[in-house]
Amino acid sequence: MGGADNMTSLVKGPKEAYLVLAEKGRSLAGLMVRESSLKFFGQCFMAGCYIGFGAHLAVVISGAMPGITDENPGLKKLIFAYLFPVNLVLITLTGGVLYTGTAVATPAAFFERKASLLDVLRCLVLSWVGNLLGSLVFAGFILWCDLLDDRSQASFLSIAEKKTSARFDVTFARGIGCNWMVSMAVLLSGQAQDMFGKVVAIYLPISTFVMLGFEHTPANFYLLGMTVEAGDMSFLDVLLKNLLPTTLGNLVAGAVVVAGSYSYFFGNLGNTTTSEATEPFRRLQAQRSMGIESDVESPENQPGNDDPKRYTSRQSASSTCAPSISSRVSFVPEGEEGPDWDAIPVGKVTKVNPV
Amino acid sequence: MGGADNMTSLVKGPKEAYLVLAEKGRSLAGLMVRESSLKFFGQCFMAGCYIGFGAHLAVVISGAMPGITDENPGLKKLIFAYLFPVNLVLITLTGGVLYTGTAVATPAAFFERKASLLDVLRCLVLSWVGNLLGSLVFAGFILWCDLLDDRSQASFLSIAEKKTSARFDVTFARGIGCNWMVSMAVLLSGQAQDMFGKVVAIYLPISTFVMLGFEHTPANFYLLGMTVEAGDMSFLDVLLKNLLPTTLGNLVAGAVVVAGSYSYFFGNLGNTTTSEATEPFRRLQAQRSMGIESDVESPENQPGNDDPKRYTSRQSASSTCAPSISSRVSFVPEGEEGPDWDAIPVGKVTKVNPV
Amino acid sequence: MGGADNMTSLVKGPKEAYLVLAEKGRSLAGLMVRESSLKFFGQCFMAGCYIGFGAHLAVVISGAMPGITDENPGLKKLIFAYLFPVNLVLITLTGGVLYTGTAVATPAAFFERKASLLDVLRCLVLSWVGNLLGSLVFAGFILWCDLLDDRSQASFLSIAEKKTSARFDVTFARGIGCNWMVSMAVLLSGQAQDMFGKVVAIYLPISTFVMLGFEHTPANFYLLGMTVEAGDMSFLDVLLKNLLPTTLGNLVAGAVVVAGSYSYFFGNLGNTTTSEATEPFRRLQAQRSMGIESDVESPENQPGNDDPKRYTSRQSASSTCAPSISSRVSFVPEGEEGPDWDAIPVGKVTKVNPV
Amino acid sequence: MGGADNMTSLVKGPKEAYLVLAEKGRSLAGLMVRESSLKFFGQCFMAGCYIGFGAHLAVVISGAMPGITDENPGLKKLIFAYLFPVNLVLITLTGGVLYTGTAVATPAAFFERKASLLDVLRCLVLSWVGNLLGSLVFAGFILWCDLLDDRSQASFLSIAEKKTSARFDVTFARGIGCNWMVSMAVLLSGQAQDMFGKVVAIYLPISTFVMLGFEHTPANFYLLGMTVEAGDMSFLDVLLKNLLPTTLGNLVAGAVVVAGSYSYFFGNLGNTTTSEATEPFRRLQAQRSMGIESDVESPENQPGNDDPKRYTSRQSASSTCAPSISSRVSFVPEGEEGPDWDAIPVGKVTKVNPV
Amino acid sequence: MGGADNMTSLVKGPKEAYLVLAEKGRSLAGLMVRESSLKFFGQCFMAGCYIGFGAHLAVVISGAMPGITDENPGLKKLIFAYLFPVNLVLITLTGGVLYTGTAVATPAAFFERKASLLDVLRCLVLSWVGNLLGSLVFAGFILWCDLLDDRSQASFLSIAEKKTSARFDVTFARGIGCNWMVSMAVLLSGQAQDMFGKVVAIYLPISTFVMLGFEHTPANFYLLGMTVEAGDMSFLDVLLKNLLPTTLGNLVAGAVVVAGSYSYFFGNLGNTTTSEATEPFRRLQAQRSMGIESDVESPENQPGNDDPKRYTSRQSASSTCAPSISSRVSFVPEGEEGPDWDAIPVGKVTKVNPV
Repeated sequence: MGGADNMTSLVKGPKEAYLVLAEKGRSLAGLMVRESSLKFFGQCFMAGCYIGFGAHLAVVISGAMPGITDENPGLKKLIFAYLFPVNLVLITLTGGVLYTGTAVATPAAFFERKASLLDVLRCLVLSWVGNLLGSLVFAGFILWCDLLDDRSQASFLSIAEKKTSARFDVTFARGIGCNWMVSMAVLLSGQAQDMFGKVVAIYLPISTFVMLGFEHTPANFYLLGMTVEAGDMSFLDVLLKNLLPTTLGNLVAGAVVVAGSYSYFFGNLGNTTTSEATEPFRRLQAQRSMGIESDVESPENQPGNDDPKRYTSRQSASSTCAPSISSRVSFVPEGEEGPDWDAIPVGKVTKVNPV
Repeated sequence: MGGADNMTSLVKGPKEAYLVLAEKGRSLAGLMVRESSLKFFGQCFMAGCYIGFGAHLAVVISGAMPGITDENPGLKKLIFAYLFPVNLVLITLTGGVLYTGTAVATPAAFFERKASLLDVLRCLVLSWVGNLLGSLVFAGFILWCDLLDDRSQASFLSIAEKKTSARFDVTFARGIGCNWMVSMAVLLSGQAQDMFGKVVAIYLPISTFVMLGFEHTPANFYLLGMTVEAGDMSFLDVLLKNLLPTTLGNLVAGAVVVAGSYSYFFGNLGNTTTSEATEPFRRLQAQRSMGIESDVESPENQPGNDDPKRYTSRQSASSTCAPSISSRVSFVPEGEEGPDWDAIPVGKVTKVNPV
Repeated sequence: MGGADNMTSLVKGPKEAYLVLAEKGRSLAGLMVRESSLKFFGQCFMAGCYIGFGAHLAVVISGAMPGITDENPGLKKLIFAYLFPVNLVLITLTGGVLYTGTAVATPAAFFERKASLLDVLRCLVLSWVGNLLGSLVFAGFILWCDLLDDRSQASFLSIAEKKTSARFDVTFARGIGCNWMVSMAVLLSGQAQDMFGKVVAIYLPISTFVMLGFEHTPANFYLLGMTVEAGDMSFLDVLLKNLLPTTLGNLVAGAVVVAGSYSYFFGNLGNTTTSEATEPFRRLQAQRSMGIESDVESPENQPGNDDPKRYTSRQSASSTCAPSISSRVSFVPEGEEGPDWDAIPVGKVTKVNPV
Repeated sequence: MGGADNMTSLVKGPKEAYLVLAEKGRSLAGLMVRESSLKFFGQCFMAGCYIGFGAHLAVVISGAMPGITDENPGLKKLIFAYLFPVNLVLITLTGGVLYTGTAVATPAAFFERKASLLDVLRCLVLSWVGNLLGSLVFAGFILWCDLLDDRSQASFLSIAEKKTSARFDVTFARGIGCNWMVSMAVLLSGQAQDMFGKVVAIYLPISTFVMLGFEHTPANFYLLGMTVEAGDMSFLDVLLKNLLPTTLGNLVAGAVVVAGSYSYFFGNLGNTTTSEATEPFRRLQAQRSMGIESDVESPENQPGNDDPKRYTSRQSASSTCAPSISSRVSFVPEGEEGPDWDAIPVGKVTKVNPV
Repeated sequence: MGGADNMTSLVKGPKEAYLVLAEKGRSLAGLMVRESSLKFFGQCFMAGCYIGFGAHLAVVISGAMPGITDENPGLKKLIFAYLFPVNLVLITLTGGVLYTGTAVATPAAFFERKASLLDVLRCLVLSWVGNLLGSLVFAGFILWCDLLDDRSQASFLSIAEKKTSARFDVTFARGIGCNWMVSMAVLLSGQAQDMFGKVVAIYLPISTFVMLGFEHTPANFYLLGMTVEAGDMSFLDVLLKNLLPTTLGNLVAGAVVVAGSYSYFFGNLGNTTTSEATEPFRRLQAQRSMGIESDVESPENQPGNDDPKRYTSRQSASSTCAPSISSRVSFVPEGEEGPDWDAIPVGKVTKVNPV
């Protein structure tokens, strides 16, 4: 194999994917703590809007095919389930931050000793609020656009009534089922290294949870928020009867069922030593997929670091064979990064400078 | 990872995609300013024609399935929405210039200090007029081909009546929703590095905005232009009741919602320093996707540069290991390009020689 | 070809795929023996849950389209068969362990002298029990979620009655037909090196066995287990009338029809010498796809090996051009690994330290 | 980017694609002139047969679904349009020569000074006749196979009547619309560097022109030829009322609308200097996609060149790092190839030895 | 291009694909002659079984949709044609040997002077018998599984009656049409270097011949064999009225229409010298896709070659930059392989040791 016939691969293994996920969690915490909560919040707000795009699309189009769906409720679910995930594609590819993904990525970072419990909680709260706000604003935008006809409004109400009528623990359990699949979508799309691979990796598990009838916190922000904005239901009802148990269920699925089991199989909880050698590479990858490359790379980017040698060192780096991005990572002296790494106590990782 | 098992990737991260988008905007401005407005205009005209191909296809075919769509208006929208985007594929892959894409790429270039406000405005105006002219000529071509039967003409009229009957601000808002998605298509297709990846990256957001009922300036050029040419509506009505608010909404979505937020997340507005080291590479990429590689590469291509050493230097470049294209970029002396880069005042970037 | 125009490949040949499969079998045995049966069992349990996701989805959705399937039982089978395989995608990509895959991978390892018969049996028993438990727990979870409506329950019962009414030898034969195709899915997905390639490689043979009506042990765990939990059938009936012959049939298909014939065509049974040179590479690949990279790589990871030189040697490895993963493999002195390899008696391979 | 994280690309930019197209045109002319008109003609004949495969398939299958198409003529067109392009895939991938592709590739070669006007005309005439003959022979073959039932024959007649009843200039205009899209398929499939990418690049524009009702010369050879062979129409009628204007329209679209505009945007007509450095690479690529690699590569392959040093030089070339194909190209002494290149007068390029 | 922006390709050109096909034919002959007819026969038997999987699937499922196919026979053909090719995917990817593919690959090897006429005939006879036996055994297996309900049996009989009622020469002609397309599937899937590319390359031409109604020898083995085993027809009838003319037609298509024309366009019959330099690489590729890598690589693998230096030489090979597989090929002394190559008389190539 190898170079002889140029065999290449576009899929990562599950362990690699899990460790990249944990680094994503670390980057999320890092983005929020080091750079600014506002930028983090902005990515949550945008993700809330994108959820609205997909959820509105699914309700409006799948609800306007009575001729073929009246006798085939399964077909209606299937169409709904294959219209909805466009939002997850938009969010995943553009670095958006969703509560459900945060609920698996930051616990993974915690298990791998890359983020403190406080960071995890702050990320969860901020993404929850950001997604909610984005969804509500987008629902308002849709109303401004006058794109909620009577039939669609009835569809929203019927969905909302169903979602708020189950027992608390049942909705909680459905929240587990949902984020189990969403976490799989996050992991699988991280394994795929080409666009359509990522799209398929997202559509398969997402459409599965939608068809099965599980509960997704941000989707419910939009679906129930629209009903609230249309005046058909009170926000308190929606919050207590659905959002609260869904939120908890999503968190348990992400933190325990997926991040926990993966950390046991491939990471820290299973007592397998993580290879430090590939660490910087993975961190770089996770940061790139989050679009926050430059904020944790090196001390050069810290605010206040106006060292006059900065520009020069970059020039010299780019004059070697190795591309500048990777060379900056590997040029960090071992004495500064290497040995410290394992010595950093859990819960303090993201507070110290990442060098 | 790395070379051991030849793991490769065919997707760019969101930050990279945004910066390539900004370079595309810079290239657009550069194409117009440095080379010739005629070539720029030609690419706009062709894009207008391609819009006609997709729009006519969507109206004619989705409108000729009464048996399955009469009871299923959602299915009709879905078929329409998956026939239409062939035009965006044709335009994106062949370097065509569309008003909607220009409305996100050139503001991005402006935010990243790669184009002046005047350049942005000239690009917007020229692409708007070029798209309109291309669409109108293509509508005339379709009439010459005698491919507008009575049922299709009725479909066009019904679409046009719906599009011109909403309030000004509602159509404006729908314009925002549209170009939000179109901009996502531009960004996502820039992230994908394989053909079907690009096609999927275009189809998903484009079909989303079409099904949701948002307003797209160039598509409306064709859809409403056909109604005007068929004598069913006056151009002034079309302009004031739809094209004007749609144009403004598209611009706000491209410039503020997408380019603005991305520049805040990944670029200049968020105060994150752009790495100059990878700059030439990105510029080259953007130029290649626009098909205007050679016009800004190096001083050798400037008209009038008949230096007899030119051919020789190329030969010597190609005799090294590095391919000639990249070597020409990196052979530019640092003293000429590097330090000037940040010193160039905003608004003048495209006026100086691109050395 | 070669480097000149950068021709690459994303598909492995059949021999390569078979040898990777045998290594997967060896890794399975190794995971169970060396590391912990609990981790192995955990991966089996998770796989049992994922089987439940796909099986429940297929029953519920395909059973809720009476309008189009009542007159078209073939269409119902087709929809069922294209909803079900999402579970195999989830399992294959995340390192889950299924009885059916184990029944082809560990016999292959046995034929290639990489695992003892005892190891094979222990893997088979453990995966059988783990899958069963996972399926039953997931069925309980679905009942908790209140996602089994009356129509679906009737569908489950009707499926269960059909599955338990055939003669023992007929069900046994159907078990052969099933795992023949599942083994093909394992092999083909191992050949594909991109996400959608793997998905297609799984969907084609899996949907084929489902539509043809063959019997899959873990799927029956869920489908019949749900009927047992719903109180419609006794577990003993289910075990004797279906699970037992299906289990045996699946084993014969995996061990004899596929692993046996492939070992004859490409491996040890056909007396073709396996190239030792590419051995370490293949082992690494199989381990990565199982997500258990670190447990058999090198003596460094053995518990108790706290050699102080360990960290240092990694650092030095990563300072060379070659990536650390491959270098660690090739840095193993020949005297320790090479000559021993063929000398290890069959049946003891996995007991000795893998160096 | 670059090597650090192994980012690769499978799509060429539009300029590159256009220049490869021009080289394809040059190779076509070269194949005809240098090697033998018979081999060229053979490729045209085969392409004519393949057109028959796809056209017959589309008519027969789409015409045998009255249950779903009688009320949905648009659906019938859609099915026809997605069955037909299998022929273009077969032709494009196997080096077949079609009049429509020749009508864009050879004019591009002419505009880029790689082929004489006479060469262009000879290619056009020979491909026209070859395609016609292939189509007619294949129609006879289908009749021999007894695969034209009554319903299909009626479908052919109805299609033929529609195709011969429009005004000359209308059919001419429809010919323009058709080859505009076919040329896009040629360009886009040249941009895609993977199989499914090429298939999608072909299906999207081809299905578009078919659904819109444009006129394709070789398809009409088969569709109308079958009607003539079945005795339902005279060849003269078919020629004058359809084939003539379609042929002219196809030529105008290929030569003027596409090759002309692309040459203006990216090539010689726009006065942009083509980079000679990448020339040999592009020529090699175009030859490979035509399957005529060896006939123009180097003087070694010229008949009569039995230099005894030949084998030796290859051996030595292959003993260096660079693969032999590329090294043979770059080993050609500069004095023989380089400076001559621009000095060759237009119209004589293909006559001289290509060294 | 080249390394600068890491442009890669996953599709081979037609000439390359043809030469790989010829090498596949050579490998087939080599597998049979040098190693053992039993292994060759085993691969034919397995291929016969896989044909059964796909053929049974297509009949049973497409025949159980009366609701949508009774009024739409074209839709029934389409569904049949897209269920059937799963067998060709299984066979192509796993190194199975089918009569139809043998009928194009071995004649290509003969035309390129890589196999003797006797080898070709022995391969054809052995694959014919092996496929037949596999199909018949699989039909018996399906009957054991009790998976032939009454409706399906009626479908089989109706198909069989249609297939045995045409004139001898008409069935012969349909056999030509079939293997023309199957040969295209073999060639195109050899061009594609990714899994889904290969799948598409197989599905497009295979579904085309199925929908058009052409005759495929191995498929008829199963379809007619099932009717014979079910007691509805005599084997002699089936043999004389269908299998004989189909066999001849398939052979003419493979040997003359495709292998002959391709050898004229790209190979020996067209008098174009094949480049010996890339020969070893191509042979390796063909062997890998057949899964018989090690049996013809080098003298080291010949039985009886227990040279003690063997292991050592491999170690040294792997210590160079070049991967061991390719280096083993190029390490063969020139004196032994190179000059002999062209001197070997036609018809004896496969008899001598391949060094």
